[in-house]
Amino acid sequence: MSTITTPDLKTAVDALLPQLKTWRRDFHHHAESGWVEFRTASIVAEELERLGYRVSVGRDVIDADSRMGVPEPEVLAQALDRARDQGAVERWLPALAGGYTGVVAEWDTGRAGPTLAYRVDLDALDLEESRADDHRPAREGFASRNAGMMHACGHDGHTTIGLGLARLFVELMPHLSGRIKLIFQPAEEGVRGARSMVEAGVLDDVDIFIATHIGTGVDKGTVVCGHNGYLATTKLDVTFTGVPAHAGANPEAGNNALLAAAQASLGLHAIPRHSTGASRINVGVLNAGSGRNVVPAAARLKLETRGETSQINDEMQRRALDVLRGAAAMQGVEMTYSLAGEARNCEPSPSLVEFIQARIAGLPGIDSVIPVENRPSGSEDATTMMQRVRERGGLATYMVFGTDLAAGHHHQRFDFDEDVLPLTIRTLAHLALQADDPALRRRRPETL
Amino acid sequence: MSTITTPDLKTAVDALLPQLKTWRRDFHHHAESGWVEFRTASIVAEELERLGYRVSVGRDVIDADSRMGVPEPEVLAQALDRARDQGAVERWLPALAGGYTGVVAEWDTGRAGPTLAYRVDLDALDLEESRADDHRPAREGFASRNAGMMHACGHDGHTTIGLGLARLFVELMPHLSGRIKLIFQPAEEGVRGARSMVEAGVLDDVDIFIATHIGTGVDKGTVVCGHNGYLATTKLDVTFTGVPAHAGANPEAGNNALLAAAQASLGLHAIPRHSTGASRINVGVLNAGSGRNVVPAAARLKLETRGETSQINDEMQRRALDVLRGAAAMQGVEMTYSLAGEARNCEPSPSLVEFIQARIAGLPGIDSVIPVENRPSGSEDATTMMQRVRERGGLATYMVFGTDLAAGHHHQRFDFDEDVLPLTIRTLAHLALQADDPALRRRRPETL
Amino acid sequence: MSTITTPDLKTAVDALLPQLKTWRRDFHHHAESGWVEFRTASIVAEELERLGYRVSVGRDVIDADSRMGVPEPEVLAQALDRARDQGAVERWLPALAGGYTGVVAEWDTGRAGPTLAYRVDLDALDLEESRADDHRPAREGFASRNAGMMHACGHDGHTTIGLGLARLFVELMPHLSGRIKLIFQPAEEGVRGARSMVEAGVLDDVDIFIATHIGTGVDKGTVVCGHNGYLATTKLDVTFTGVPAHAGANPEAGNNALLAAAQASLGLHAIPRHSTGASRINVGVLNAGSGRNVVPAAARLKLETRGETSQINDEMQRRALDVLRGAAAMQGVEMTYSLAGEARNCEPSPSLVEFIQARIAGLPGIDSVIPVENRPSGSEDATTMMQRVRERGGLATYMVFGTDLAAGHHHQRFDFDEDVLPLTIRTLAHLALQADDPALRRRRPETL
Amino acid sequence: MSTITTPDLKTAVDALLPQLKTWRRDFHHHAESGWVEFRTASIVAEELERLGYRVSVGRDVIDADSRMGVPEPEVLAQALDRARDQGAVERWLPALAGGYTGVVAEWDTGRAGPTLAYRVDLDALDLEESRADDHRPAREGFASRNAGMMHACGHDGHTTIGLGLARLFVELMPHLSGRIKLIFQPAEEGVRGARSMVEAGVLDDVDIFIATHIGTGVDKGTVVCGHNGYLATTKLDVTFTGVPAHAGANPEAGNNALLAAAQASLGLHAIPRHSTGASRINVGVLNAGSGRNVVPAAARLKLETRGETSQINDEMQRRALDVLRGAAAMQGVEMTYSLAGEARNCEPSPSLVEFIQARIAGLPGIDSVIPVENRPSGSEDATTMMQRVRERGGLATYMVFGTDLAAGHHHQRFDFDEDVLPLTIRTLAHLALQADDPALRRRRPETL
Repeated sequence: MSTITTPDLKTAVDALLPQLKTWRRDFHHHAESGWVEFRTASIVAEELERLGYRVSVGRDVIDADSRMGVPEPEVLAQALDRARDQGAVERWLPALAGGYTGVVAEWDTGRAGPTLAYRVDLDALDLEESRADDHRPAREGFASRNAGMMHACGHDGHTTIGLGLARLFVELMPHLSGRIKLIFQPAEEGVRGARSMVEAGVLDDVDIFIATHIGTGVDKGTVVCGHNGYLATTKLDVTFTGVPAHAGANPEAGNNALLAAAQASLGLHAIPRHSTGASRINVGVLNAGSGRNVVPAAARLKLETRGETSQINDEMQRRALDVLRGAAAMQGVEMTYSLAGEARNCEPSPSLVEFIQARIAGLPGIDSVIPVENRPSGSEDATTMMQRVRERGGLATYMVFGTDLAAGHHHQRFDFDEDVLPLTIRTLAHLALQADDPALRRRRPETL
Repeated sequence: MSTITTPDLKTAVDALLPQLKTWRRDFHHHAESGWVEFRTASIVAEELERLGYRVSVGRDVIDADSRMGVPEPEVLAQALDRARDQGAVERWLPALAGGYTGVVAEWDTGRAGPTLAYRVDLDALDLEESRADDHRPAREGFASRNAGMMHACGHDGHTTIGLGLARLFVELMPHLSGRIKLIFQPAEEGVRGARSMVEAGVLDDVDIFIATHIGTGVDKGTVVCGHNGYLATTKLDVTFTGVPAHAGANPEAGNNALLAAAQASLGLHAIPRHSTGASRINVGVLNAGSGRNVVPAAARLKLETRGETSQINDEMQRRALDVLRGAAAMQGVEMTYSLAGEARNCEPSPSLVEFIQARIAGLPGIDSVIPVENRPSGSEDATTMMQRVRERGGLATYMVFGTDLAAGHHHQRFDFDEDVLPLTIRTLAHLALQADDPALRRRRPETL
Repeated sequence: MSTITTPDLKTAVDALLPQLKTWRRDFHHHAESGWVEFRTASIVAEELERLGYRVSVGRDVIDADSRMGVPEPEVLAQALDRARDQGAVERWLPALAGGYTGVVAEWDTGRAGPTLAYRVDLDALDLEESRADDHRPAREGFASRNAGMMHACGHDGHTTIGLGLARLFVELMPHLSGRIKLIFQPAEEGVRGARSMVEAGVLDDVDIFIATHIGTGVDKGTVVCGHNGYLATTKLDVTFTGVPAHAGANPEAGNNALLAAAQASLGLHAIPRHSTGASRINVGVLNAGSGRNVVPAAARLKLETRGETSQINDEMQRRALDVLRGAAAMQGVEMTYSLAGEARNCEPSPSLVEFIQARIAGLPGIDSVIPVENRPSGSEDATTMMQRVRERGGLATYMVFGTDLAAGHHHQRFDFDEDVLPLTIRTLAHLALQADDPALRRRRPETL
Repeated sequence: MSTITTPDLKTAVDALLPQLKTWRRDFHHHAESGWVEFRTASIVAEELERLGYRVSVGRDVIDADSRMGVPEPEVLAQALDRARDQGAVERWLPALAGGYTGVVAEWDTGRAGPTLAYRVDLDALDLEESRADDHRPAREGFASRNAGMMHACGHDGHTTIGLGLARLFVELMPHLSGRIKLIFQPAEEGVRGARSMVEAGVLDDVDIFIATHIGTGVDKGTVVCGHNGYLATTKLDVTFTGVPAHAGANPEAGNNALLAAAQASLGLHAIPRHSTGASRINVGVLNAGSGRNVVPAAARLKLETRGETSQINDEMQRRALDVLRGAAAMQGVEMTYSLAGEARNCEPSPSLVEFIQARIAGLPGIDSVIPVENRPSGSEDATTMMQRVRERGGLATYMVFGTDLAAGHHHQRFDFDEDVLPLTIRTLAHLALQADDPALRRRRPETL
């Protein structure tokens, strides 16, 4: 099979530069948070179909019951109206409505070869973007139009990379073999969306899976082949329901949900450390009570556990539930909870990491290649996809492309050097051209 | 000195009945909560001046620095606009603006005799009124127009009683001696307003002081001459300020305000019981944290202590502050607090109670007279006024006029039998006619 | 029926004075704590039988399963040996052995009349007596021989009163009617013993019941006819059992009993105050853990609840168990508890109080008579007996005979003015002579 | 310089085997815990002096004020008596008395070369040894004679290794250069003793330092050249002192030390996890309160913090003290604490590890050589010595010699395969013979 040369790739991607900038800034300007990426997803789907991909959206790629942390129906409805007002492509909206904002594009080359999948994420954060003059998006007029939503993590760039790659692959098709699959996932923030695409079967036929992130503390020009620092995590929304009473007149008639929440918060943070790796616990939000002179009858907690391995996180979650149930019993109140997010930890496939390391060293714009980065950091939804791929015998990794940042991820002045967009597209395309390599052949399913 | 007979009083008050109903329902319909009783106070002042009383309002009767729990400036400003829209009497508004909503009316008979003062309260609760058909104010169209504000304690009735009494006294003036003083206080709910009127000197010349409440669990036709169950209380708003940190990436960099609030809540409720009388503690509201994955950097508590005596409450407050300071120190966070309300406990003057008991027995509509009711219940701002009066050698009591209630005080379907309005006015007037009695002569100041 | 005059009583009791002093100091010198009053009970039984009473001891008057807080078998066995060494009357010991140290003496006059019962208590406290020179028992050589046991509450005096009364009654028999019953109970401290005598049926035939205490804050010369301040109480011994683990090597393998106990202690003290009367909670002892570097696998609590009424105490106990169970569940540890003591609150019978008040006023040595004392104080085992008597239609009260104290009850320098002994004996005998009064006739059983 | 061959070493050590067994079992039989190793230290000193070493003991090698966790004077005195009874060498006792149980032996070869030091520890654990038949020391009659003290960690073996090495070195002297220093330290358990030897200057002239441990989870035949898993740690003894009160009569008069300890325990365990490495916290012992019905006036905690680095542990300790002070303030009680133990984490010198790895591979009895073991485990007093050596430019490491164990370290049935004794002695001697190697030359002081 013929390959095209790297200089050719550079030329091809350079031709896309104006379009990349336009896309990135348009998505940034119309930031949409998890499960309401109606405008973004419709534009992505329209472009992919226009390019000739077989496009699936909505419930075809999202398992309804596996979604986590979906907003209330009114919020979804208002967001759909806003998307329509802001130029969403109408014909895709019926399928996306209600929080089914995933898009999958496939292209079969007709030649034998692996199914190669890329994951990018679509959603913005719940954050108010800075309007300060020293924040470029504000100064240049592409800061978020949408109050309380901001692309402060770089997913606007990821979506752009996905579309740029889609265009480039059309040109490269004669040189590719097997199948190309581009996965645009909703609701990565809060690790809420990947499970629904996994459960819909989107990953089941994937042989080689690459998720990417720009930035995350890596220098410009440096590429990480396999990021292995993501912590397994569980997000829980908890409600304690007690009995109100007048705190002066008959306090003994109450069952105090606030005290249950206080006991629980202490108990949760006191869950023992784990000797086999990092663990985390945080009660991030606690709201309890209605009035100063009323025994509080309701309390709500937003909490999360994490673990360096999924096993550690599972143990943290089990203990957290013991604590929550016990705290409720102490005060004679009821406790209910819902899963608001969940991610695995998942190691990159060593053979894929090794392959990438060998093939990308020395590419233009790449000064340094790190094979595996182990430093524990946050959590990442793509791990759920990686796990499914590896369990079924495929190879999976998570790459990081360094870039200069104006401020850290999740900061209201986050911005990135857009040079990372063509670099990432070129590098991923370069790998696609070599994906039918014996070193990457499918193997027996793994037990992770 | 001549007196008029009770049958005359009944006739005179019956003539007021349509006006009483109109007032009560108008005030109910335009419920205004503490410190924003702009419309109510302006109507009260206008009526009192029209009747010939010497009227003082605003800073003349409210000491600015002694007010507690005053809303934010924007809230005050919006409420003033609303009052204007809803028919406030414009000429009083400049003096009332900014939260100075007290009104005092005086009438000097020119004859020797005591200064006799009545206290009524003007404010509504922060509560959404029921719109159900079985709630009479909703059915008959006088439920509160103002979202989140409701006369659910009966202060609309109290204000009506104050105005009815004012009208009646004009007729009775030939039969009265000494001075009459009608005190309309703001912000009784949360025990926030009385102190500012006491510090403005409003009570300093009062010889006989009667505060009244309708309802409070007493049967229709029953009158309590001296309610002695009010608990001394302190209301505190507390803020813990810590340091945020990413709960996954570097939890050790945070100082957790939520955990400080949790420790404090447990410590507060664990303050020891007091052997010399009832005590109470309640953390009614706790709000902490901003996001699930952030170490919470802020927490706010609304709490209250109570005591059967002021001494007990003082001890509760002292311990509460120890707990709050210690909890902050445990987590390395800062703690600040403000006094959001305060009331004394104060016993009614025994001689005044005895006098009232003797003189009202057998009046029309009064089936039963209870001299002193000791059952601990909530707290009451008037106790601060009672204490000042007694400290300066006057007599003071707190009377309760029973009535049928549709639902308990502070319930969103609270309503009362309006028959209590004329009964209360007649009874209070009856006492006024006999106030120049040797048994009620001023004595040496008391140490309470 | 003839009565003897008060002067006669005085003469008769004065003749006993040397014996009273001898008894009191002997019992004080040989202090025996609850359930091990082997020497004391044997001497009491021997004297009563010698006087001609029908004496019952051991399991005849103690229901084995209803005993609470009985020491371990080794402790019982050692105490029996010590009692033997210190002059116990051998022939009673087999029946008393193992913690059955109650004695009941009965005398039937053969004449119609009520069964009149007196309750005295035998046990000392677990306390080391002062050896200071300003402590009379030390100075005069009758301080406790037994380490860690001291009559610091006055039960040595009570036992003396019981024996003195027994002797006096023998002289008075011609003047008495009905039946006399003298009840010497073990283990009043910790409210552990009365229930076992009640369940053995000792109180079932009693018409008039009088329990007595000397001291308790009442002045010398003052007598309380009905003490009503005893709080209902429940004593619980609690054990949390978790799983140990090395705190450095694998803390996650442990289940932490110490943290369960800490959570429980806070939750217990935070049980809401009760609006209908005084309540109390105390975790008096907490011992947890075995070594600094081991996750604690065991924790033990000694706690008590109290209530001004038995209903309040029952609610406290119910909540305490919720807290304990919940705290265990939070940490995944087991919780077991045992009842270590229990007393009711029980009001004295008003008619008996009134009768006593009328009959003792003006007796020699009595300066002041208080009908009912309501001030909440500690708890008292006799209330369980009082309740049984009143439930079956009898009359019951709890009298207090004031005396000067060297230091408060339960203090290691406690001592009392022995003048109270003859005064109490005379007064109780005086009442016995008048017990067949129509005012004290048995009535229908009460529901308390 | 000449060296002797490994076969020679084997022969020489084999000759010592009966003596090694005798020593080990004698020390095991006469287990002495930290600071009371009077018998053990006297026997060690006597043997070393007999062999010709220059021996220093007591305050010459122990800085009095730097000792931690020293028992009370009575305990020290009783232990000295017991040591005397059990055959301690009398002439050393005066210097050792009072808890100065360190021994240092030096031998200067007179030839240029490094000062090579070995650290072994002398103390037993506070643990009751098993008397079960399947426990070899019990079955063969060398289980501990001393109640509550047991060599359950292997220090009896370490002391034996130290003496065996001392004997062997005498034979090897012609082949050695520089100086040999044998350091026998007291009170390693609880990490209490090393600091006092460091502060006495014992380590200041050491160029190469090797501490050793047998067992610790490593297979027989496996040797770890540099154990790097020891956690820095701080041991604190904490006392809360409040005010007692009768829990029924006047609970408000108390200041509750038990609740302070409970709040503290929860707060301590809730100290945030550290993102840069493992941390630990354990409240291992909590004892509070004196009686069920008394507000607890005293509480005592034994706790420890640990950290993968000394910096992490320092932060844990700082937060722990905040928690303790704050908890005391919450309850109005006093808090005092004392340092009961302390150890650093300290990495082995890489060049020394590399050297050892290269030189011991293939020695008889060594099947496997692990260069560095990173798994976090407990803490180790020798790290304080290692740090001093490295700070002054020397090299230091911590070696582990695997062996079969009957039960884990600190278990009451701990026992080890005594084959590890000659293996360790041979290996350490083998290294000594090569210590004057350029690779091990002293370098500039390090900042650790």
